[in-house]
Amino acid sequence: MSRVYNFSAGPAVLPLEVLQQAQNEMVEYPGLGMSIMETSHRGKVYAALQAEAEANLRELMGIPADYAVLFLQGGASLQFGMVPMNLLLPGQVADYTNSGAWGEKAIEDARRIGQVHVAADCGADIPTRVPRIAELQLSDNAAYVHITSNETISGAQWKEFPRTEAPLVADMSSDILSRPIEVRDFGLIYAGAQKNLGPSGVTIVIIRKDIAERVPASVPVMLKYRTHIKSDSLYNTPPCFSVYMLNLITRWVKEQGVDKLFAQNRAKAALIYDAIDKSGGFYRGTALPECRSDMNVTFRLPTEELESSFASEAAAADLKNLKGHRSVGGIRASIYNAFPVAGVEALVAFMQDFQTRNG
Amino acid sequence: MSRVYNFSAGPAVLPLEVLQQAQNEMVEYPGLGMSIMETSHRGKVYAALQAEAEANLRELMGIPADYAVLFLQGGASLQFGMVPMNLLLPGQVADYTNSGAWGEKAIEDARRIGQVHVAADCGADIPTRVPRIAELQLSDNAAYVHITSNETISGAQWKEFPRTEAPLVADMSSDILSRPIEVRDFGLIYAGAQKNLGPSGVTIVIIRKDIAERVPASVPVMLKYRTHIKSDSLYNTPPCFSVYMLNLITRWVKEQGVDKLFAQNRAKAALIYDAIDKSGGFYRGTALPECRSDMNVTFRLPTEELESSFASEAAAADLKNLKGHRSVGGIRASIYNAFPVAGVEALVAFMQDFQTRNG
Repeated sequence: MSRVYNFSAGPAVLPLEVLQQAQNEMVEYPGLGMSIMETSHRGKVYAALQAEAEANLRELMGIPADYAVLFLQGGASLQFGMVPMNLLLPGQVADYTNSGAWGEKAIEDARRIGQVHVAADCGADIPTRVPRIAELQLSDNAAYVHITSNETISGAQWKEFPRTEAPLVADMSSDILSRPIEVRDFGLIYAGAQKNLGPSGVTIVIIRKDIAERVPASVPVMLKYRTHIKSDSLYNTPPCFSVYMLNLITRWVKEQGVDKLFAQNRAKAALIYDAIDKSGGFYRGTALPECRSDMNVTFRLPTEELESSFASEAAAADLKNLKGHRSVGGIRASIYNAFPVAGVEALVAFMQDFQTRNG
Repeated sequence: MSRVYNFSAGPAVLPLEVLQQAQNEMVEYPGLGMSIMETSHRGKVYAALQAEAEANLRELMGIPADYAVLFLQGGASLQFGMVPMNLLLPGQVADYTNSGAWGEKAIEDARRIGQVHVAADCGADIPTRVPRIAELQLSDNAAYVHITSNETISGAQWKEFPRTEAPLVADMSSDILSRPIEVRDFGLIYAGAQKNLGPSGVTIVIIRKDIAERVPASVPVMLKYRTHIKSDSLYNTPPCFSVYMLNLITRWVKEQGVDKLFAQNRAKAALIYDAIDKSGGFYRGTALPECRSDMNVTFRLPTEELESSFASEAAAADLKNLKGHRSVGGIRASIYNAFPVAGVEALVAFMQDFQTRNG
C-alpha cells in the first residue's frame, strides 16, 4: 500500500517531506542522543525549535511586536471558553457572529461566562454562508467581536474581514496560513493546528498583549492568556512533539510562500467548483458562491444513495475521507495547504467519471 | 552519536522499541495509506487505538466500571483548575495537602475557585517529605481531599494513601503505572503523560463518574469532566499522536507487568540510595528516608561547585539531565518505568568514581 489522497477535514494531510524528516529523527534527534519527545522542554534544543516556530509564524503572517504568539493545548474548543473567561467582564457584552456549527459552539460557551449579543445570524441559512459585513449589528462598547473565518463543516469562508472598533477575535482553525491576512486588524486569532499547521495537540493563539491584562483574578492560571505570554508558552510542559511538527510545517510554508500557497489554494478549489458548476446540476455546491471556502469544498449529489456510492467508490480509488460531516451529510473535499494539486485533479476526473456512470 | 542515558524529569525516556515502532509507522500507518497523525479522530483506526489504550489502562490499573478514563490536554497544571471548577461548589471547602512545589500549585489554583483548607503542610520541610497520614487534619464534609502522590522536584513520595470519606483526588503525574494502586480508594486521579505514560500533550484523568455530575452550568464545555465522559474523550479533536504513543506504552507495560516494574523501580532506586548512604556523607539524600521517591532520586554534594561539576562531567559521560530542578538545585536522577537498569548502574559507578576523585 502506498500513500492515498486524504481529503480529511482534520487531522489532515501533512507534507510528505515533513513526515519523512520526522521519521528520520524519531529515535535520535540530531546531536541529542534521544528523541525530541524525550528531551526536557526547558532544554536548549526544544527551546530553539519553539522559538523558531514562533519566528517563522511572525514572518509568515507579519505579526507585530505587540502581539504574542502562544502554543497552547485543548484545540479551538477550549478557546471557546478561554476567550470570554479572559476578555468578557461582568457588565460587558460580547458580539458574536453565527455562521454555522463552529460559530454556534463559540456562542454557546460564551453564554456560560457572560452576556452575548448575536450581531449576525446566518447559521441555519441554505445555501450556507457567512455574514456580509454590512449586516453586522455591532454593540456599542462590545468587549470584542467574534467571527469564524472559515466554517469547516458548511464550507463557507469570510473573504474579507470587518474593521471593528472592539477587538476582533477570529477562530481561524481551518484557514490560518492559507492566505495573507492583516494581523493588525485582529485582537486575537486562534487556531487548532490539525488542518494547516501540523498534527493535533497544539493550538496557536495570536493575541494583542494589552487585551490579555483585563482577565479576572478568579480565572485558573492555565486559562489566563497572561500566564502564557509571561512564560513564553513554557509555564508548564508544552505538547513538544506537536510543536516540533508545527515548526517543520512553518519551514515548509516558508519554502512555498504564503502568497503562492494562497494562489494555489484558490486554483485547487476553483478546479472542483468548476466541475460542480459545469455538471448541469448533478453536483450542487452547498455554499453561496461568494462565500465558497477554498479549504473545504462542500457539495451534494441528486440523492443520499448517490452520495454514499460516491464516497465509497472514491475511497476504493484511493480518494479517502470525502464523506461530509455527519451533521450535514453530502460530500466534503478538504484541501488545505498540504493537499497536492494532483489529488484535486484526480478528484475532478473521478467526479466526471462518476457523473457519466450515474448522471 | 548513539542514544544516551536520559535522566530527564519529564518529558522523559521512552522505551526504544516503542520509538522504533513509531518510526516505522510514521509515514504510512499499516493499512491506512497515511500517517496516524493525518487520519480523522472519528475514523475506525484512531478509535480502535484509543479504545485499546483505555482497555489497557483499565486492565493494568484495575479501574472499576463506574470510573471513566479520559484523554485530555493541558497537563496536570490545567487539572489544578479543572478539579475545583468541577468539584468545589460555593459554600464548600476542599482539603489540600502541601508536600512541595506541585501541591502548592494545586492549592494556589483551587483558591482562585473556592475555599481551601490546608490539611497538612510540609511543603517547606527539609529534609523534604510528604505528610504522614496521622497528621492530616481533614474537614468535616470536605468536597474532596487533594494529594500529590509524588513530588517530582523534591523527590518525596506517598508510600501508602489515606482512606478518606471525601473523594480522594491525586496528582499522579510522576508515578502513575509505576506501582500497583487501589483505584477504588480514589475519586479522581490525574497525570500528565510525559513521565511514565508517553510523550507530553496528553493527560489521563480517571474519575468516578458520579462526582462529575456536580459541576456548575457556568463552567465552559471543555472544562467539564462530564463533557468528556459523555463523548468518550472525543468531544473535539484529541491529541491523536500522543494518544497513539501512550497506547504503545501501555502495550509495553503489559509485556513487563506493573508488579515487575514496581519491583524493578524499587531496585533501581535502591541502587542509588545505597550509593548515597554508603558515601560517608559525600552524597546527601534530600528526602526523609521513609518518603524517598522511587521515581526521582534527589541528593546534594558538599558544595554547589561540586554539584555543577558532577552534572557536567556526568553529561560528558552520556549520563544526561542530572541537574536538579532550577528552584532547588542539587542533583536529580529521574528513573521512570522506561529508564534502564544499566543506566542506573552506570550512574552509581560514576558517583563512586566522582567521589574518589573529589571526596
